[in-house]
Amino acid sequence: MASVLIREAKEGDCGNILRLIRELAEYEKLSDQVKISEEALISAALRADGFGENPFYHCLVAEILPAPGEPQGHGIGSKIIKKVAEVALDKGCSQFRLSVLDWNKRAMDLYKALGAQDLTEAEGWHSFRFEGEAMRELAGK
Amino acid sequence: MASVLIREAKEGDCGNILRLIRELAEYEKLSDQVKISEEALISAALRADGFGENPFYHCLVAEILPAPGEPQGHGIGSKIIKKVAEVALDKGCSQFRLSVLDWNKRAMDLYKALGAQDLTEAEGWHSFRFEGEAMRELAGK
Repeated sequence: MASVLIREAKEGDCGNILRLIRELAEYEKLSDQVKISEEALISAALRADGFGENPFYHCLVAEILPAPGEPQGHGIGSKIIKKVAEVALDKGCSQFRLSVLDWNKRAMDLYKALGAQDLTEAEGWHSFRFEGEAMRELAGK
Repeated sequence: MASVLIREAKEGDCGNILRLIRELAEYEKLSDQVKISEEALISAALRADGFGENPFYHCLVAEILPAPGEPQGHGIGSKIIKKVAEVALDKGCSQFRLSVLDWNKRAMDLYKALGAQDLTEAEGWHSFRFEGEAMRELAGK
């Protein structure tokens, strides 16, 4: 049987993290939002933001050793979410949130099955984004 | 004319921050989600989370010196959002996000007027929350 190890990301994972960001954006039909085309530049940003003194993000990775002849899919999504719940409780968090596209029924069904509540559906929360030119204009830069 | 000063929050602001959290929850008809009833406990949590070594949140406050006889409302929302844009750019952020309830037309109109995009409307993003019993069950605790 395939074995799955969930562990904290290391700086050397940034190349693979970038690859997975691109693959996710492609799956989400939002590839145009991964804007920097130079691998080296974006990989350097991932290193700086995640592995400095006050990191902007924390990251878990799943290492998979597939068993020959076995189909894909090893419950990695559930395993990572369980690990996130563990880390969050250890850090004293009372909740954590995930964003998901409304057509991604597979992900939504998984999150609901694991006990999450769809806040957009239940309470009407919308997510607003400020970026680029709008940010610079607001900041007067 | 009233003067408005936007500044970084200090530890001594936590009592007022808590009061504003409660007032916002009341306005949002979500008072049941501010669960801890003991002022001292939640105020201590705000202190620990925001003013330790690796703070979980950063906070800006607006200090207002109202001019006698002037009506309420001094464009504080816009002023704080402009400051957030400034801080975000200084820290190297490429975007920032706000959550808003779908019936809060006043806030939505303000954010749009300032250049934000409604990602839930435009791309279909939903926000999912894991909390309490669901988190503990996932973590096996």
